[in-house]
Amino acid sequence: MEAEGLPEPDFSIEQLGERRFPSPLQRIMEVRYRSDNECLLVQPEFDCRIEPDHAPAAAATMELAGPRAQVFFDTGRVRAAIVTCGGLCPGLNAVIRGLVMQLWYLYDCRQVLGIRFGYQGLGNAAQESIMLTPARVSAINGRGGTILGSSRGTPPTAELVDNLERRGIDMLFVIGGDGSMRGGTALWEEIRRRRLQIAVVGIPKTIDNDIPWVRRTFGFDTAVAEAVKAINAAEVEANGMPHGIGLVKLMGRAAGFIAATACVASGNANACLIPEVPFQLEGPNGLLALLEKRLHERNHAVVVVAEGAGQHLVAGQGTDASGNPHLGDIGACLKQRITEHFHSRNLRCAMKYIEPSYLIRAAAPNASDQLYCDQLARAAVHAAMAGKGGLLIGNWNGRLVHIPMQALKGRTSQVNPHGELWFSVLENTGQPRLLD
Amino acid sequence: MEAEGLPEPDFSIEQLGERRFPSPLQRIMEVRYRSDNECLLVQPEFDCRIEPDHAPAAAATMELAGPRAQVFFDTGRVRAAIVTCGGLCPGLNAVIRGLVMQLWYLYDCRQVLGIRFGYQGLGNAAQESIMLTPARVSAINGRGGTILGSSRGTPPTAELVDNLERRGIDMLFVIGGDGSMRGGTALWEEIRRRRLQIAVVGIPKTIDNDIPWVRRTFGFDTAVAEAVKAINAAEVEANGMPHGIGLVKLMGRAAGFIAATACVASGNANACLIPEVPFQLEGPNGLLALLEKRLHERNHAVVVVAEGAGQHLVAGQGTDASGNPHLGDIGACLKQRITEHFHSRNLRCAMKYIEPSYLIRAAAPNASDQLYCDQLARAAVHAAMAGKGGLLIGNWNGRLVHIPMQALKGRTSQVNPHGELWFSVLENTGQPRLLD
Amino acid sequence: MEAEGLPEPDFSIEQLGERRFPSPLQRIMEVRYRSDNECLLVQPEFDCRIEPDHAPAAAATMELAGPRAQVFFDTGRVRAAIVTCGGLCPGLNAVIRGLVMQLWYLYDCRQVLGIRFGYQGLGNAAQESIMLTPARVSAINGRGGTILGSSRGTPPTAELVDNLERRGIDMLFVIGGDGSMRGGTALWEEIRRRRLQIAVVGIPKTIDNDIPWVRRTFGFDTAVAEAVKAINAAEVEANGMPHGIGLVKLMGRAAGFIAATACVASGNANACLIPEVPFQLEGPNGLLALLEKRLHERNHAVVVVAEGAGQHLVAGQGTDASGNPHLGDIGACLKQRITEHFHSRNLRCAMKYIEPSYLIRAAAPNASDQLYCDQLARAAVHAAMAGKGGLLIGNWNGRLVHIPMQALKGRTSQVNPHGELWFSVLENTGQPRLLD
Amino acid sequence: MEAEGLPEPDFSIEQLGERRFPSPLQRIMEVRYRSDNECLLVQPEFDCRIEPDHAPAAAATMELAGPRAQVFFDTGRVRAAIVTCGGLCPGLNAVIRGLVMQLWYLYDCRQVLGIRFGYQGLGNAAQESIMLTPARVSAINGRGGTILGSSRGTPPTAELVDNLERRGIDMLFVIGGDGSMRGGTALWEEIRRRRLQIAVVGIPKTIDNDIPWVRRTFGFDTAVAEAVKAINAAEVEANGMPHGIGLVKLMGRAAGFIAATACVASGNANACLIPEVPFQLEGPNGLLALLEKRLHERNHAVVVVAEGAGQHLVAGQGTDASGNPHLGDIGACLKQRITEHFHSRNLRCAMKYIEPSYLIRAAAPNASDQLYCDQLARAAVHAAMAGKGGLLIGNWNGRLVHIPMQALKGRTSQVNPHGELWFSVLENTGQPRLLD
Repeated sequence: MEAEGLPEPDFSIEQLGERRFPSPLQRIMEVRYRSDNECLLVQPEFDCRIEPDHAPAAAATMELAGPRAQVFFDTGRVRAAIVTCGGLCPGLNAVIRGLVMQLWYLYDCRQVLGIRFGYQGLGNAAQESIMLTPARVSAINGRGGTILGSSRGTPPTAELVDNLERRGIDMLFVIGGDGSMRGGTALWEEIRRRRLQIAVVGIPKTIDNDIPWVRRTFGFDTAVAEAVKAINAAEVEANGMPHGIGLVKLMGRAAGFIAATACVASGNANACLIPEVPFQLEGPNGLLALLEKRLHERNHAVVVVAEGAGQHLVAGQGTDASGNPHLGDIGACLKQRITEHFHSRNLRCAMKYIEPSYLIRAAAPNASDQLYCDQLARAAVHAAMAGKGGLLIGNWNGRLVHIPMQALKGRTSQVNPHGELWFSVLENTGQPRLLD
Repeated sequence: MEAEGLPEPDFSIEQLGERRFPSPLQRIMEVRYRSDNECLLVQPEFDCRIEPDHAPAAAATMELAGPRAQVFFDTGRVRAAIVTCGGLCPGLNAVIRGLVMQLWYLYDCRQVLGIRFGYQGLGNAAQESIMLTPARVSAINGRGGTILGSSRGTPPTAELVDNLERRGIDMLFVIGGDGSMRGGTALWEEIRRRRLQIAVVGIPKTIDNDIPWVRRTFGFDTAVAEAVKAINAAEVEANGMPHGIGLVKLMGRAAGFIAATACVASGNANACLIPEVPFQLEGPNGLLALLEKRLHERNHAVVVVAEGAGQHLVAGQGTDASGNPHLGDIGACLKQRITEHFHSRNLRCAMKYIEPSYLIRAAAPNASDQLYCDQLARAAVHAAMAGKGGLLIGNWNGRLVHIPMQALKGRTSQVNPHGELWFSVLENTGQPRLLD
Repeated sequence: MEAEGLPEPDFSIEQLGERRFPSPLQRIMEVRYRSDNECLLVQPEFDCRIEPDHAPAAAATMELAGPRAQVFFDTGRVRAAIVTCGGLCPGLNAVIRGLVMQLWYLYDCRQVLGIRFGYQGLGNAAQESIMLTPARVSAINGRGGTILGSSRGTPPTAELVDNLERRGIDMLFVIGGDGSMRGGTALWEEIRRRRLQIAVVGIPKTIDNDIPWVRRTFGFDTAVAEAVKAINAAEVEANGMPHGIGLVKLMGRAAGFIAATACVASGNANACLIPEVPFQLEGPNGLLALLEKRLHERNHAVVVVAEGAGQHLVAGQGTDASGNPHLGDIGACLKQRITEHFHSRNLRCAMKYIEPSYLIRAAAPNASDQLYCDQLARAAVHAAMAGKGGLLIGNWNGRLVHIPMQALKGRTSQVNPHGELWFSVLENTGQPRLLD
Repeated sequence: MEAEGLPEPDFSIEQLGERRFPSPLQRIMEVRYRSDNECLLVQPEFDCRIEPDHAPAAAATMELAGPRAQVFFDTGRVRAAIVTCGGLCPGLNAVIRGLVMQLWYLYDCRQVLGIRFGYQGLGNAAQESIMLTPARVSAINGRGGTILGSSRGTPPTAELVDNLERRGIDMLFVIGGDGSMRGGTALWEEIRRRRLQIAVVGIPKTIDNDIPWVRRTFGFDTAVAEAVKAINAAEVEANGMPHGIGLVKLMGRAAGFIAATACVASGNANACLIPEVPFQLEGPNGLLALLEKRLHERNHAVVVVAEGAGQHLVAGQGTDASGNPHLGDIGACLKQRITEHFHSRNLRCAMKYIEPSYLIRAAAPNASDQLYCDQLARAAVHAAMAGKGGLLIGNWNGRLVHIPMQALKGRTSQVNPHGELWFSVLENTGQPRLLD
């Protein structure tokens, strides 16, 4: 999976102030603390011939996540809050559990508020919170959804900060997507403007896996596994009838990572359509001609489409509460256009349309995601205790790192049409370039 | 689950002729053969007070399935054929495996044709068949779909019988639903008219579980388990947002067994709508008022609807290739009507609509269904070898029995609105009578 | 699955006294109440030739379970208690949930005590109980284990009844096996002797499925599904190495239902050893010769053994706290004897031994068992509210029935070596009679 | 997960000769070829303060995997062979599928031999091979085990190379562990000595994840997920009885990655014992005292032990056919020692011992591993076609790389007792340092 090729942003991380307290971690084990000076080269690949010495004096680097020897807060007195924003994603509860466990057992923090229903709940002075304890969260890591509830949209920043002040919160953990991180940036700026001492740390959540510098977002692994089930079911259905066409619509507004990855993992798709790669329906190289040929030769076909693909074929209007543009329904469009095409040519076609999105989003996280959520939560707690803010926990080249929230601005991660993942899709599906 | 209360039909079973060959089963083990005279009382419940002697001299009985000591065919020379008809259902491959294994190992039958693509393939002289062997089928029992392919609709009976003759088939196993059993009746009548010696045995397949005298059809157990997953996902989604409504549309054209059973097994539904029980949307006792009340009190709700429910609200037209009337789309209707209702009252509602039908139909059969498919196949092979025809394998009060195909005529099995299953639904969902 | 052939016991059910209260169920729906006179013919099969009129004037019958129009207790004032005894079994929590939900919502009972740690906890005046409410149990039906905890063994009956009195309990639900039902009989007799008004209703729990008149115990279906996974893993392992032998030891002290059923469902076993069917290791017809032949011909083999099989080969001693004799470890014995046999003949053999028992017992119940647990719990609540006692909920020919606990005395249900299930095992495994 | 800290080996890769053929890949898509000069910095982390310019002129680098523009072989004429060695691991079939698919569709290679039963089969001139085609392998990626069979041990190198020559093999793909890679090094050296033109590429397989420069081996993710199930079952069992102790023995001869990772993912273990971290049973800080304390306070406990842990407590002898020392059975030892400890103090303890190893090894790979296997296979095929040899496909900091097989010599990857993973284990289990 690849990120985009814009110029590197500034990766430096802001800090609430001097760290005056020794970390209480040492009592657990002999910890290897990290210093803020330990950093990760953003670009570790190079050409030995051209750069034999590889001396990027000004090379971009990222700050590594991990425990700091000195912390900013008097940890046992901290009042922390957790909020989950936007659509569901497998692992939300596992992140919540990780945060609570680590605040409690590593840093002796005994006040952890669970904000209900996302930023909406944080902005609503009347909305009650849940007091989170190890007993309350110890068994939730394997469950889908979020025990806190979520919501879309962001109330005015001032109201959010007013409520943080009113509730006496010292650190806020925001589990959310792109829009929530934009909201987090605004929050953090307002906190700095008011000279408050509230840490704000984001744990990026996007089932589409489209956040830059986060190679893999939590829940993605589970989502792919569930998507594979749907593709395999489509293959069974398509095979079960003469001229069967299985059509699966998956998530992926601007990035086709789930669709592409699930196609390769399943090995059962014959065409994969994603937002990053344009395609035509009509014409000798179009999808319809491909399907006609395949049904003629092999009697069945499976097509996987990401929801953001082929938007030139459908008319979407307006935006949702998170500010995302409404997409046209490419799944319904393909279902209709394919059926019509075959009927208009007096060819048979048994269309089997599967849209498993909610089943995927609500799935219980698999073991791999449960583990990963625990790691992300640990990194977030360390960062907040160190008094850092306006950052999110990234994952770059296998390391957890601190990424400034504002570094996301204007960027998104997409499937590289000339990269490894898409190449493996093409090889797996055998699909040609669907353009004249 | 309950069958309907029509007068009992004639349960007597037809036979191709005298059985002149000893069964080869004895070489496997000491078999307890069944005689055609062993029968099962259709109605084993009675009132001790009113009928202290319980002497129903003319009580209806059914013939028990099982191996016969004498068989009609010279089993080693038999040419058998298997056909799968209609929509997919978990367990089709397990039945195919069971038939092949038992024909081969119990009765030394070495010629088993797999007819491709249902009755359409049987009626098509040009359609090639698959020669089925233990090696070919030994590992298919755990897979979804059908290796033979299926189709809807029935070509003219005469053509089917012509093809049976042309291919030299001695016994035909029809795995199919209601319509396929009607087709099977016609086939059998034509076979008798032509005085052919071809056994025809049906293994009832209906994911809706709506065939009379078949308490449980294969695949139903798996289907319920998959449906439960969808209901649980809907609950997670509905709980994840303020004012979330999870809406799940399940199979069930005329019978709500899957919806009702899955609601009880899941314990997570707040309303269950099935074809057998009328309901209103509007009015003080209607579904909309119920949802409004529940969202007010509990902030979320889950509704499960069988595809055949509430047809007064939607306009369906025409029939499909299997002769079933096209149903109006009650799922889409409820999704729209509920959303509109809340919007028109300026109430919030986050609608999460899940339609998992193809995922359910294409599912791999669970262990219980794999076992059951093996049992059904065994009973079917015994019946065919005994030279019986025009029957299907029923399941009555825990016994496998022979049911004449024509006994299905004009009957269907439905959820009894005054029975145990529906009572448990009401108790689980807490839903009132949704009528004025 | 078959029960034994002893003479029928007395199936009449005892009652605490006259039922003076109308059932509160009518407010939920139009209930079809059952009368105590509605009964089920124990033996619904007969020979039409010999008994053309089928007039068993004195035929044995069972009382059907279900709601009664009049109940014994003033239901809103009832104090109920639930206890889980013996080893774990999938579905314990689902039964607990069902009991609580139905006591609460059907009968307005607001005091439901969860007794901790089985009869041991019931006999221990110092052991605290859990107050069970719908909120506490609503989400436990899909979880393995028991939230109450269990234990083995039965304290003196008088102490148990003392504690029932001391805690003011009106009805006790015992979820347990053979031994617990014996304990329940003693409890009930002591209650009657003291002229107390405490109903005692058992819900039979035995993962071995060996209780008479209970065709299927809850959890059995799940257990078989888990056992199938182990058999399939053994097949993968055996196939993965030259001369691989997969050996799986399953539960089944006196009855091989799990082993036999799982072998058929899996289709992957080559020999199935159960307590009901003797076998030899040595000799030309013994298991060792069979394995040698199979490895020679097919390079791998899978053997499934129930823990109670082949006890002539191993020395077990003493009894456990539940009074069951300690079995010798037939799994370890076979592992050793088979390995030695091949080594002694300079033949290769790669032994893969799997013992999944705790994984099976602790499994989450599948949807089918969750549903069944709900039905059993409902029947148990109806029986207790009607003031019945000393009975358990049986399952006979597809109907839930009341069986006197003492009818179990001296009986156990076993696989019939001449019946359908065993025949299907032989056909699936292809195993010969492993005796000279 | 961390690798060890030895001095970096030589990472340069050997080559059969000049690449004279243009790669046929371009016809699939616009490929981004990699040059051998593209390399990856082994150590991308540094201290900005100490090394502000980060100019490691002589820093160690690895060659990146991927397609080369020129290849060594005339791809359409290549005869490839695949061999699977050592114990089973989830994903073997998925790697086989990936190799066949990519040889066939990317490089037009039509002769792919599947060597049966590992190096033993390769060394046995009489052992038949399987001709592998897309049709043969297209549906095997989701299945456990290996369709080729495996074996332990390595016949004399000369015989293996003789057979490679005799069978006319141009490239050999070795899917195997540590020992198999040692065998592969010897093979490659002999090939070079004989001046043959046979590429040898390894795909590292070790369920223990203990191969250096391979952060994650295929199947590890699946193995952890299965291990989590066992730990969760142990927790259910331990909770189900008073004083229950769940003890789970997992794989991990020299490296405790599975045990450690599964403990964190599950969140249900109270102690984790791995080979890298010594522990005591006895004494005030020993495991027995810890368990006694925990059972006193919390009534149950769960212990997870890797098979190679605590070898000072058990006596293992000899080595197996792969040359690995036989380990003493620490699981059986702990089971006995813990039980004895409690009995000797007249304390109760219900021991529940689970050993799921074969169930884990034989598991079907999850979607994530299926995807990963496809990627590994692709990299291996590119490397072989480029005429490289004596290398394996590594995974370093998120990139697939070429690692010389001999670089493994004398090294193994282990859990770092001062690193992130072990720290998260300590935090999750709450276990103290189990040493005086």
